[in-house]
Amino acid sequence: MDAVKPAKSVGLVQRQYFTFAEDEPMPLDSGESLAPITQAYETYGELNEEHSNAILIEHALSGDAHAAGYHSSQDPKPGWWDECIGPGKAFDTDRYFVVCSNVIGGCQGSTGPSSINPGTGRPYGLSFPVVTIGDMVRAQRHLMDYLEIDEILAIVGGSMGGMQVLQWAVTYPQRVRAALPLAATARHSPMLIAFSEVGRQAIYADPNWNGGDYYFGQPRPNTGLALARMIGNITYLSDESMKQKFGRRLQGRERFGYDFDTDFAIESYLRYKGHQFTERFDANSYLYVTKALDYFDLSNDYDSLMDALSRTAHIMYLVVSFTSDWLYPTYHSKELVSALTAVGADVTYTDLQSTWGHDAFLLEVETMTALISDFLGRVVAEHNVPLPVVPHGQVSVTGDEADGAGDSSPSETGGGSQ
Amino acid sequence: MDAVKPAKSVGLVQRQYFTFAEDEPMPLDSGESLAPITQAYETYGELNEEHSNAILIEHALSGDAHAAGYHSSQDPKPGWWDECIGPGKAFDTDRYFVVCSNVIGGCQGSTGPSSINPGTGRPYGLSFPVVTIGDMVRAQRHLMDYLEIDEILAIVGGSMGGMQVLQWAVTYPQRVRAALPLAATARHSPMLIAFSEVGRQAIYADPNWNGGDYYFGQPRPNTGLALARMIGNITYLSDESMKQKFGRRLQGRERFGYDFDTDFAIESYLRYKGHQFTERFDANSYLYVTKALDYFDLSNDYDSLMDALSRTAHIMYLVVSFTSDWLYPTYHSKELVSALTAVGADVTYTDLQSTWGHDAFLLEVETMTALISDFLGRVVAEHNVPLPVVPHGQVSVTGDEADGAGDSSPSETGGGSQ
Repeated sequence: MDAVKPAKSVGLVQRQYFTFAEDEPMPLDSGESLAPITQAYETYGELNEEHSNAILIEHALSGDAHAAGYHSSQDPKPGWWDECIGPGKAFDTDRYFVVCSNVIGGCQGSTGPSSINPGTGRPYGLSFPVVTIGDMVRAQRHLMDYLEIDEILAIVGGSMGGMQVLQWAVTYPQRVRAALPLAATARHSPMLIAFSEVGRQAIYADPNWNGGDYYFGQPRPNTGLALARMIGNITYLSDESMKQKFGRRLQGRERFGYDFDTDFAIESYLRYKGHQFTERFDANSYLYVTKALDYFDLSNDYDSLMDALSRTAHIMYLVVSFTSDWLYPTYHSKELVSALTAVGADVTYTDLQSTWGHDAFLLEVETMTALISDFLGRVVAEHNVPLPVVPHGQVSVTGDEADGAGDSSPSETGGGSQ
Repeated sequence: MDAVKPAKSVGLVQRQYFTFAEDEPMPLDSGESLAPITQAYETYGELNEEHSNAILIEHALSGDAHAAGYHSSQDPKPGWWDECIGPGKAFDTDRYFVVCSNVIGGCQGSTGPSSINPGTGRPYGLSFPVVTIGDMVRAQRHLMDYLEIDEILAIVGGSMGGMQVLQWAVTYPQRVRAALPLAATARHSPMLIAFSEVGRQAIYADPNWNGGDYYFGQPRPNTGLALARMIGNITYLSDESMKQKFGRRLQGRERFGYDFDTDFAIESYLRYKGHQFTERFDANSYLYVTKALDYFDLSNDYDSLMDALSRTAHIMYLVVSFTSDWLYPTYHSKELVSALTAVGADVTYTDLQSTWGHDAFLLEVETMTALISDFLGRVVAEHNVPLPVVPHGQVSVTGDEADGAGDSSPSETGGGSQ
């Protein structure tokens, strides 16, 4: 962060923690229970008197609670969705109270397999219970209770974040006014499960993984985790974006090496991304969070998707898919929209033209900003939400910032796809 | 094989070997050279008096020389493209002399990293020189010389096989009358390189790989190789075919296990496929063959793709892509067709509707048979190739056989995609 606060930034922020279920364990979908549970979270902006202007941001697979702003004046990078959260941005912190919390099962402050099991005084490792998207949402509900937010103005997230959005709507329909699932699905497909599984196999195959027990100064299963991430990284891009960004360009070579060192820029990129990921993510959490994704099917406890969604007909939806997203292809969103329409919900749906693949939900900032702020304006009007009067009065994103989004990969900003 | 020879089978066949370059090493694209070189191959049907009815079959990444028939009366499965090679089939062995050879760098009889280096008396391992698609084709040319086939009636192959087809056309245009690149590309894209690279990284990460030195009774890098194959297997399928074949069906469970054992059928399939692959493929060969794929760009030694193809204008082409093949998407074939058309070649192009993804080139037997036999009929007529008169007179595939193709995965039949 520059000494001078960047324009339209929420500025310096702090990660906060809320611990609950200390006396009474929280039941999980598996039949197990968990206690205590800590939720790491951040907030930006101010809650209005009526507690009616809260927006809950749900992060993707590798994301965390740090969605916007800077943790220190030396911080080189802002939170993972900083381009969309701040004064005058899509989630305008002059108007809304924005909350982002790290999922349970993760490794960035919320309770997960690397947390200390109070029963043993040692990290859980694989003794941590398997959690679901439903469990993640259940834990967040406790955080919302604590923050005294009964009705959430809007819940938004991309990829796994979008699944949490949908789960919120179905599990706690009376607490949600608007839901924005982006590049998401109502049901993890077999192809998605397949990619999850090979990522997990890469971790199991690393001898340092050691059955999930590696927290006591042993070498960590970084090779396996990096490999899992490399596989993931391919799926977050698109054939087209890889061509635009890398093509068949060689890396640090004038001609083919005819060896097994790095020849191509795309190889170098993947190796770097894989390595970088090991510096901020825990291999066991990768197992748990991908498993939660695989179990995700909004209709699990219902007769059908429509049956699940029928209770959410009063919620306003903004559903967005991206034309080049082959991981969560457009038809996933269309099926969702079709079911929502059938149950009579107010749905706005856009299939955005983009070459960025699944990552597009983090990169198409300018278009997303326009879409989201228009939609939120409608939600606010519909519910007569009193908002602070702000001087700038309208949302805009400069061309420079939009370009910047295109240049920086989302995983570089810590957002992480899925 | 049943005691009675199956209808329309080439019957019992034998793998044959041709060794050359014993005195004079064959130069490679890398600047290195290789000697001696053995080519494993099989032939089906009879070469006519004029030596003008030869069809050369090129296999994909994990394929081998055993394209049709059975190796013994106990052999449970025929060669990998048996549904298209045999009496009355697409490559009608009553009419054509069909040759299939294993690529150098591979591990199924042709010289590769697991072969004995005569200079040391030990397997090459990583001291084997890196080979290219051009080198594979150069070695095959020696086999064609040995078989006294100056002009090859048609060269055909899918995926990596299709790249060899194109390389043959460009390197030895005067020896090729027709070329059939299926589900292929003139240039390996960055996405393809990315998937190759994560497969290689999976092998490097296996401690048993040991820098490629594992041939002396040590445990083999089967975990890494299986993982590489699992990644590959996902890319050979399609989102749609995985839904049709597996959906979210559980494997041997009534409900979620909430553990890290196998929950879903797609996981079980991938684990099985990965394991099965290690029984027939060498990890070092996986490195070498994927590297050859990555280096492949038909225009490498030319000013452009058109420049490369301009020398092939007299060749008749049948180019086929498949609508659900996201690994070698349709646009790859369209670019090729566009360049071929521009240089004035006779091109037949079809983008076949199929849900099978990249594997479609092995599975869409009925349609492929009709397409290929029509095309070959045109080539034969154009060149006045004298063919044996056969009683059945026309090609047909029964519905049952076409269905059978759909049920058996190509990797089960040893064909292997790419």
